[in-house]
Amino acid sequence: MSANSPLHAYIHGQITPLDQAFLHISDLAIQRGYGVFDFFKVHAGQPLFLDYYLDRFYQSAQLMELAVPLERPALMEVIQALIRRNDLPLSGIKMILTGGYSADGYNPVEPNLLITQQPLTLPTPELLATGIKVITHDYLREIPPAKTINYSIGIRLLKQIKAHGADDVLYHHKGVVTEFPRANFFLVKYDNTVVTPATQVLAGITRRNILALPEQPYSISVGTVTLDDVYQAKEAFLTSTTKRVLPVVQIDDVVLGTGKPGPVTMALLQALLQVEEQQQQTLIVT
Amino acid sequence: MSANSPLHAYIHGQITPLDQAFLHISDLAIQRGYGVFDFFKVHAGQPLFLDYYLDRFYQSAQLMELAVPLERPALMEVIQALIRRNDLPLSGIKMILTGGYSADGYNPVEPNLLITQQPLTLPTPELLATGIKVITHDYLREIPPAKTINYSIGIRLLKQIKAHGADDVLYHHKGVVTEFPRANFFLVKYDNTVVTPATQVLAGITRRNILALPEQPYSISVGTVTLDDVYQAKEAFLTSTTKRVLPVVQIDDVVLGTGKPGPVTMALLQALLQVEEQQQQTLIVT
Repeated sequence: MSANSPLHAYIHGQITPLDQAFLHISDLAIQRGYGVFDFFKVHAGQPLFLDYYLDRFYQSAQLMELAVPLERPALMEVIQALIRRNDLPLSGIKMILTGGYSADGYNPVEPNLLITQQPLTLPTPELLATGIKVITHDYLREIPPAKTINYSIGIRLLKQIKAHGADDVLYHHKGVVTEFPRANFFLVKYDNTVVTPATQVLAGITRRNILALPEQPYSISVGTVTLDDVYQAKEAFLTSTTKRVLPVVQIDDVVLGTGKPGPVTMALLQALLQVEEQQQQTLIVT
Repeated sequence: MSANSPLHAYIHGQITPLDQAFLHISDLAIQRGYGVFDFFKVHAGQPLFLDYYLDRFYQSAQLMELAVPLERPALMEVIQALIRRNDLPLSGIKMILTGGYSADGYNPVEPNLLITQQPLTLPTPELLATGIKVITHDYLREIPPAKTINYSIGIRLLKQIKAHGADDVLYHHKGVVTEFPRANFFLVKYDNTVVTPATQVLAGITRRNILALPEQPYSISVGTVTLDDVYQAKEAFLTSTTKRVLPVVQIDDVVLGTGKPGPVTMALLQALLQVEEQQQQTLIVT
């Protein structure tokens, strides 16, 4: 991207400068918070694991009774065109699908599809060396398998997170741990087995990649994770598209293990980086 | 309003034709479904029970950590200016407050305040004579006292409501009844006592007006209402700003009482109309 070239977005069926991307206030996202989205990473012009993200985007749309206005090949063409237009070295692409311009402000109509692309910042080496602290909060997302735009609880908790000197909030429901507002959760037990909550969570693509890692010395599986398990963990980490594998070193008042990012977490981050690298190579060859 | 005068709305600090009222897609309502709103009725230029609606609007904003950009007198002036501009005989005014144009798409910033006004249609005599059928669904709103824009569940259920030949959905949580997506619930027992769920509901202004009715022959109170209570009710009705008192004659497969709107419901509708009329007269005198 040349220094003076503005970022572009896709809206109303065309690629437009981002600063001219507007929705009329009759849109159901504005009127009723009604919409779904998804978000993937683009490295050197290549969207990583795009198939998985598109699968999930279409599934979220279906779960919320919204029809994506573009078939998959057409959507992929738009994504490629946007990538060429913005020409960013490392970026995230967000697709948002809303309930559309509803005349009565309640019934969904023809959905609006927005696609934006922004430069991406990955966790710094300093952050990876320190890890993060999190608080916990009892909340279960309304429709866990759907990536809806509803973040009322997560955003409302930002002040509380800050007041506790924490970086994020881990949700549990009646003591059963689920996920972060924007990331999945994994813990490492003292026997080095790794577990992530099995149900009532978003099917994270990075979570999927960790669970699918080949030839790990650790057992990695899905299961029930309670707050008690969490407080007794040796290590813990979150996974997300932008954060990859990020160590969690304190949960509420409990310092985990040594209070520093642990070896299993860091080994899994390295393994993930290899998988990303392989995906990148595959895409370039293809 | 002259026939050719377009509706106007308040956005970005000024009154603008509604068809030119847009938000940039960085707004947190679009990105994260983050916002609150309120809605009141305007009859012959007079907003009815405005104080109560404004109280609730500021309270919702506070509950969601959003600052209303206008103090109450300034907000009332904007409302009055909009009413004069649109000059509608009977209308509803909706105020929406969003998380604003967030640079990172997550942290709330300076909120955007939108105010729209639309002609209002009240329930027809035919609908009042027939009543409505409702289904039930287990759901508890995330922050019951706040009127957030999150209607993910209510809107997602529209298809199911239609499939059952019903008109609305009554929420309960583990058998304890709360409210409709956009209305409060009341039931009338066979001893003619009237009860509405006490907690975990939005503090509806019409609900408040019913609870505050002077000199009724019926005991009207708040309490715990279970699905069992509902199925054994003699009458039931919903209350809302636009629907006033609307009879409910069937809940799931259970026909209530005679299957027709009952005398207590219709008496309370008449009593509410009197209260509205008195409010209207008071405003004109003042």
